[in-house]
Amino acid sequence: MKQDRPVSPAVINRLPRYYRFLRDLLGRGVTRISSRDLAQLMNVTASQIRQDLNCFGGFGQQGYGYNVDLLYKEIGSILGLNQLTPAILIGAGNLGKTIANQIDLSSRGFRLGGAFDKSPDIIGTNLVGLTVRDIRDLEAFCREQGPRAAVVCVPKEAAAQLAADLVAWGIVGFWNFSSYDFTQNHKGGTAVNVHLGDMVMTLSYYMDQYTPQPETEEL
Amino acid sequence: MKQDRPVSPAVINRLPRYYRFLRDLLGRGVTRISSRDLAQLMNVTASQIRQDLNCFGGFGQQGYGYNVDLLYKEIGSILGLNQLTPAILIGAGNLGKTIANQIDLSSRGFRLGGAFDKSPDIIGTNLVGLTVRDIRDLEAFCREQGPRAAVVCVPKEAAAQLAADLVAWGIVGFWNFSSYDFTQNHKGGTAVNVHLGDMVMTLSYYMDQYTPQPETEEL
Repeated sequence: MKQDRPVSPAVINRLPRYYRFLRDLLGRGVTRISSRDLAQLMNVTASQIRQDLNCFGGFGQQGYGYNVDLLYKEIGSILGLNQLTPAILIGAGNLGKTIANQIDLSSRGFRLGGAFDKSPDIIGTNLVGLTVRDIRDLEAFCREQGPRAAVVCVPKEAAAQLAADLVAWGIVGFWNFSSYDFTQNHKGGTAVNVHLGDMVMTLSYYMDQYTPQPETEEL
Repeated sequence: MKQDRPVSPAVINRLPRYYRFLRDLLGRGVTRISSRDLAQLMNVTASQIRQDLNCFGGFGQQGYGYNVDLLYKEIGSILGLNQLTPAILIGAGNLGKTIANQIDLSSRGFRLGGAFDKSPDIIGTNLVGLTVRDIRDLEAFCREQGPRAAVVCVPKEAAAQLAADLVAWGIVGFWNFSSYDFTQNHKGGTAVNVHLGDMVMTLSYYMDQYTPQPETEEL
């Protein structure tokens, strides 16, 4: 669902969490919830929930709260989950396999239509119902099938080499697990770069700032 | 390195990226860089770099730029990487194995001292040099060895059950891959919750907003 004006990335990053909590509520048979109760459940303020949802017009009713099913569907629609963007996975080694097995893309806006690797040991194996193809067939596949998004699970150097080709072959969205930054040189597309190693460094920072450190080794 | 006053999370989240780019520069033998060149390389503005680093006192010299090695070490020190916090990994299935193999914790502030699982097929196997232990031995291990951080790679329900115990056994930092939110009920600790499924939904949003959608299926 296209928004009339840009919404701040912080709000967008919070939307999937609302979606997740609302799905849990639906699963537990809850049909209606006050912003106060939703706030308590999610450990945020009711005012933040109202502010976040007001970016999209707001969905609560004074004195009623939120209709859980309606809000769930609205947020899904805002996130673009009611259409499936065709996607491919590149790099079907341990990381690629784990991502494909852990994350059900079809409930998150994408339809995985192909998986590619360069290793003869991996080509031909099964990955979530797909037969892993030879990466040499990637260009032909892209030109024939028109995938729009790629889950990139190859090392940095391989990603850097592939990036320009993928853009040329029509890929405009990257869910990138390589330590190469996809947005860096390819501004035509949209990328969510997942730097796992960066995340654990922020944990190190916060532990250093906010928790006692009785057991650490000085290097 | 403790900071005198809190630094915004947005700045903290950017620090590991500076650290990564500086390490690459060092690897290429670059010893000195202007904020303009660093900005161009990282696809940010020179003013943002200066503002970010000024939160920690700033490290550039007018007319000289940044000493790459010095800045790399300073940011490492800010991130708390010059000490190794003892850590454990819980859940050594595919996800846990992938994380442990992909991310070298020792260069990111942590020393992995134990790995735990409940599956007889996994207990006793090798994980990055550690023999995976029975999760029933977790309490004794925590009380004897005093790990401070946990990489949590178990399903949501298991994580919810473990959370209070882990806090009671002295774990104060969580790198959490389960879809249970660790910060939610355990305010004593620090958590970096990695919701991979949330991330790909934000990609869906941005693709829906900013890229043409010629090939999508309506559900």
